[in-house]
Amino acid sequence: MSGSVFGKCFTVTTWGESHGKALGAVIDGCPAGVKIDEEYIQSFMDRRKPGSSRYATKRVESDKIEILSGVFEGVTTGAPVSLILYNESQRSHDYSDIAHVYRPGHADYTYDVKYGIRDYRGGGRSSGRETSARVAAGAVAIKALSELGISFLTYVSSVGDISCDDNNFDKDFINQNELYMPDRAAYEKARAYLDEVASKGDSSGAAVKCIVKGVPAGIGDPCFDKLDARIAGALMSIGAVKAVEIGNGIEASRSRGSLNNDGFCAEDGKVFKKTNNAGGILGGISDGSDIVIKAHFKPTPSIYSEQSTVNSDMENVKINIKGRHDPIIAPRAAVVVEAMTALSILDLLLCGMGSKMENVLKVYNN
Amino acid sequence: MSGSVFGKCFTVTTWGESHGKALGAVIDGCPAGVKIDEEYIQSFMDRRKPGSSRYATKRVESDKIEILSGVFEGVTTGAPVSLILYNESQRSHDYSDIAHVYRPGHADYTYDVKYGIRDYRGGGRSSGRETSARVAAGAVAIKALSELGISFLTYVSSVGDISCDDNNFDKDFINQNELYMPDRAAYEKARAYLDEVASKGDSSGAAVKCIVKGVPAGIGDPCFDKLDARIAGALMSIGAVKAVEIGNGIEASRSRGSLNNDGFCAEDGKVFKKTNNAGGILGGISDGSDIVIKAHFKPTPSIYSEQSTVNSDMENVKINIKGRHDPIIAPRAAVVVEAMTALSILDLLLCGMGSKMENVLKVYNN
Amino acid sequence: MSGSVFGKCFTVTTWGESHGKALGAVIDGCPAGVKIDEEYIQSFMDRRKPGSSRYATKRVESDKIEILSGVFEGVTTGAPVSLILYNESQRSHDYSDIAHVYRPGHADYTYDVKYGIRDYRGGGRSSGRETSARVAAGAVAIKALSELGISFLTYVSSVGDISCDDNNFDKDFINQNELYMPDRAAYEKARAYLDEVASKGDSSGAAVKCIVKGVPAGIGDPCFDKLDARIAGALMSIGAVKAVEIGNGIEASRSRGSLNNDGFCAEDGKVFKKTNNAGGILGGISDGSDIVIKAHFKPTPSIYSEQSTVNSDMENVKINIKGRHDPIIAPRAAVVVEAMTALSILDLLLCGMGSKMENVLKVYNN
Amino acid sequence: MSGSVFGKCFTVTTWGESHGKALGAVIDGCPAGVKIDEEYIQSFMDRRKPGSSRYATKRVESDKIEILSGVFEGVTTGAPVSLILYNESQRSHDYSDIAHVYRPGHADYTYDVKYGIRDYRGGGRSSGRETSARVAAGAVAIKALSELGISFLTYVSSVGDISCDDNNFDKDFINQNELYMPDRAAYEKARAYLDEVASKGDSSGAAVKCIVKGVPAGIGDPCFDKLDARIAGALMSIGAVKAVEIGNGIEASRSRGSLNNDGFCAEDGKVFKKTNNAGGILGGISDGSDIVIKAHFKPTPSIYSEQSTVNSDMENVKINIKGRHDPIIAPRAAVVVEAMTALSILDLLLCGMGSKMENVLKVYNN
Repeated sequence: MSGSVFGKCFTVTTWGESHGKALGAVIDGCPAGVKIDEEYIQSFMDRRKPGSSRYATKRVESDKIEILSGVFEGVTTGAPVSLILYNESQRSHDYSDIAHVYRPGHADYTYDVKYGIRDYRGGGRSSGRETSARVAAGAVAIKALSELGISFLTYVSSVGDISCDDNNFDKDFINQNELYMPDRAAYEKARAYLDEVASKGDSSGAAVKCIVKGVPAGIGDPCFDKLDARIAGALMSIGAVKAVEIGNGIEASRSRGSLNNDGFCAEDGKVFKKTNNAGGILGGISDGSDIVIKAHFKPTPSIYSEQSTVNSDMENVKINIKGRHDPIIAPRAAVVVEAMTALSILDLLLCGMGSKMENVLKVYNN
Repeated sequence: MSGSVFGKCFTVTTWGESHGKALGAVIDGCPAGVKIDEEYIQSFMDRRKPGSSRYATKRVESDKIEILSGVFEGVTTGAPVSLILYNESQRSHDYSDIAHVYRPGHADYTYDVKYGIRDYRGGGRSSGRETSARVAAGAVAIKALSELGISFLTYVSSVGDISCDDNNFDKDFINQNELYMPDRAAYEKARAYLDEVASKGDSSGAAVKCIVKGVPAGIGDPCFDKLDARIAGALMSIGAVKAVEIGNGIEASRSRGSLNNDGFCAEDGKVFKKTNNAGGILGGISDGSDIVIKAHFKPTPSIYSEQSTVNSDMENVKINIKGRHDPIIAPRAAVVVEAMTALSILDLLLCGMGSKMENVLKVYNN
Repeated sequence: MSGSVFGKCFTVTTWGESHGKALGAVIDGCPAGVKIDEEYIQSFMDRRKPGSSRYATKRVESDKIEILSGVFEGVTTGAPVSLILYNESQRSHDYSDIAHVYRPGHADYTYDVKYGIRDYRGGGRSSGRETSARVAAGAVAIKALSELGISFLTYVSSVGDISCDDNNFDKDFINQNELYMPDRAAYEKARAYLDEVASKGDSSGAAVKCIVKGVPAGIGDPCFDKLDARIAGALMSIGAVKAVEIGNGIEASRSRGSLNNDGFCAEDGKVFKKTNNAGGILGGISDGSDIVIKAHFKPTPSIYSEQSTVNSDMENVKINIKGRHDPIIAPRAAVVVEAMTALSILDLLLCGMGSKMENVLKVYNN
Repeated sequence: MSGSVFGKCFTVTTWGESHGKALGAVIDGCPAGVKIDEEYIQSFMDRRKPGSSRYATKRVESDKIEILSGVFEGVTTGAPVSLILYNESQRSHDYSDIAHVYRPGHADYTYDVKYGIRDYRGGGRSSGRETSARVAAGAVAIKALSELGISFLTYVSSVGDISCDDNNFDKDFINQNELYMPDRAAYEKARAYLDEVASKGDSSGAAVKCIVKGVPAGIGDPCFDKLDARIAGALMSIGAVKAVEIGNGIEASRSRGSLNNDGFCAEDGKVFKKTNNAGGILGGISDGSDIVIKAHFKPTPSIYSEQSTVNSDMENVKINIKGRHDPIIAPRAAVVVEAMTALSILDLLLCGMGSKMENVLKVYNN
């Protein structure tokens, strides 16, 4: 299962299964000199913690993050930063009913085909819990980026058919509701919708928007490591994401050039754009505007209704999934979107330091 | 500009600028034994060739592909396959009007910031012409995949607001119209729309759909090199792409689990799915169903109207872009979508050969 | 400090400092189906354990390895294998005397220049203790290779000027002496020499030889990932190694073609070589003969004599290094040589599975 | 044959066979702003050109290098630099005698096993001619490094048993003799020796030394991308190299710590070392001293005597290799050693730019 390593310069390797001893991430290539501590990282972990809202699973996990290496006296040393969180909620359990049955919408079948063996106690690596390690590593990236003046604003922009209205945008409200929505009216509707969905044992899809401010122009490496390419890949690697948009995204495919092009302006020797349909990226390189991205999540595949499926003996069977699961993924996944975006940006920012000799001389000839 | 290398096992490096001497691709890691010749690759090049339709630029390029290495007596040898195509249409030209002006929607500004120097004779690496090298490499990948029974169907699924209707799907029609649309009625509407758009010197966005048949279950490396993650990154790296969807994509975010989950069925010892909302990928691994993806293209940024912008002296100026440019990108880019999808699948297919010891023993213990 | 990731297909990331909380390795890309447990890995850890011989440091560490993920019911699942060992011997200590002084032959100075900060409590990442994580990961690789019939024989071939004589080679004796030498007479001399060296507070260099049997022909990826290139890089990455030889190594540079070429022979449809000056590698690819390599270690830089050096204020000072350190590195490092060789071979073996379509079809068309 | 890509940040992909149409290299990640032209690169190509001395093959090749992309008006643009040289000496030839016979000391057999097909017209990728592409890319790296004040001195330090004496070191003489030796007396002996060797149709091994001046302290990424590890791997990837030494190399394994440690000194606020046994690298990171390395080459495997071998039908046969081949490889390979060393250093120098936040801020906050 090569594939658990992300990034070229700020390289993150995640490990751990949902029902194993622990999960973790190792960051290789973190610049020395980033001030970081467990408390800071924990504040990100808490945003994806289950049990914090009525729409999240009741499974109790403290998700307590621990730094094992790479930080000395509160500062990164340039050595690999190893982060670990133990699984506290490993209940001894009877899995015999699902061990050999492939849950619809889950990765049980594909893992069995690929590896010939599967830790049937949970989703293993395909569990949403795997993303906790991404969040831990992402928190370190976000801290490093903040020292460069880069900040993130992430929220749930739609639940099912209910979309937030930009005219009702209330930044402060995002952290005041368990759905992390910035529009109170939309939130109220979404809450009613989710109550109805949950009451039927069903689940709902949703979308997460992430806006990154302060990214300097010049980040992204054409042609294959373009900033938007990297972010798209990073977000699509999150479990339930089925679509990614940059800037006005799909809307661009319905638009005309005369409307879609963002004109440049100059003021006080600085370039800016009057509009930002491009989402802050031109030719795969940041242009100094806000980076704007959206990730679309499918509904939680675990639902409380009987479903048709097959088992590993290739027999048609019925399945009733028990246990705890959220009727909506996006609120807890918003911080994962933020983390993956941050990892993408920081990696390309570091990889691009040598884009011109002028920069190389700045670092080595002083 | 590190970033011109794609893939880990089937590694493609592209090079060349729109107005330089030549462009090319080097494939490292192509298995020995793939039957390939220039004629086969050329048939793919011709699909993105300019000048082939009324909606494509009049620039005349033969886009004649040449194999320089890695093929001996019609078969790949395992050595790097070097592919080249010369730029024949390098007209001596007066670029003084655009050399220092940043075209809206183009990468002129971001390249200048990043590299401090820019080949102002054209888009350089950000030109659509760069994708010709991807198509050449992609053709080799598609040939290798065809030897495994994998095939591609790619077409323009919407132009502006006009979408093809699945009920009118006519596979044969795709190659009978210059827009590569599978729905004759939608094509007629799109053609009328594009005539109107072009008459105003404007341009239109569009979407391309790609369906891959015959991909065995088990391809894709969680958690970061998932098949959908890789494809999303690959497609978003194509110049004008602003959104990527897998399976039902954005629709999933509006759906419910009970509707969105694809139930598994078994028949004659084989697993299949009754529906394919997932687009053939579960947990980032192919499930044996068709892989279904969609890429959304913004309108061509080069339009024939005066636009506001800035120059490299940070002055506000007006620009009128001359030269030849398509009012729509997608028809010529469809083959690029196919190529990047093929490169993604083949790379992961090769990287995943060692997913279980059983496979390792098959290769080395015979 | 990007650089802690080794391998492309069997990817090992190590982390941890000599005086931090713990050290570990994460293996990404281990094929599913390798039977492995902590006891097996521990047997390798014990070979580099300090305190096991009169020539090793007295520092007591249990070096108890723990598997945190990727193994289910005694078998690898294809998920990342996370291995950890805690530092038990973190004594609270007064480091003020060495915190700002650069020990000769150590990496204190270069780390300070590179990172601007250093965990002065020990060698940090440059400590020999870092190699314990390599050994843990190497043990997993060796287990996987053993399932393919590949085995290792590793020993100390010279200490200072004292070399083992092939005519006295006694395989069983290797594990019967604390210097891991295969020649009893040479061992006796080496022991006397080391007693003398140690009595003066000095240290000695030495060489380690590793012979790998059963590697199938065809492993190694020209031109830059040749098997010998990869092994050479892997061995030179071990702390004190200053030279690496493949086959007859330096002797080849003094030889003639007529003497140095290994003639091929055929018997019963199998190819073999009458001699093995090449060390089992031709053109960077294994030829089916034994892989033979040698790594040369410098003397332990920590010695018990006063040395001249500088401190971080750029003052000339004297230093007397206290603490526990071995007068010879090689005996404990032999298992590290074996581990790095195994990681190199397994990685290339997995990466090379797709060298021909015939193999690809074996895996995917059955 | 994945394996033709070298480096992470300054990424070089080589392609081409000895008897194909052309060979080339693509550099991805070259910083913009390096002043480079074909003439400069050609001067390096000429150092490995055959036919230039009595000991080199008579094969006539102009080895004329051409830049196809990435350079605009004499300066790199940050886009991939594509370099090509055509094979002019592709004589139509009867290869039937060697097409199915495995030459001793060559890679014919291993390529056949690995790829199942082989371009039998020459060594293909295992030919020494492959290194011409490395030299072309290396020349660009050397130019970039020279802009940072880094320079190279490379020469043949021994031929067979004849070693240059440091006391007779004459830098100017290196380019005045076809063996690139710095010691006139040793050269005279070597010349007599080679005459004798050649007269018998035999060949000789040799060693090449490379000294790099001006490398700033801090280059190299522990633990696996240490500067010495990278260089060792790079040099061992050159066809006939069988051993690599850093600093005093093998001598270190015979030495004592008290003799081998290089004491640090400070003068005028600068650190230097009194001796340089370490070869300028401590803990895998450059220490500001000269980088000193040595590569040992085996004798040319193509000799003019009858040899025993096997053919692809597994029959024991005799072979008499015809054609043109050098009795010694090292003089022409010296520039390859220099090129690979330069590629290693520049790559790590670029990759290491983000080793501390201080550097990141220098580049992005100005």
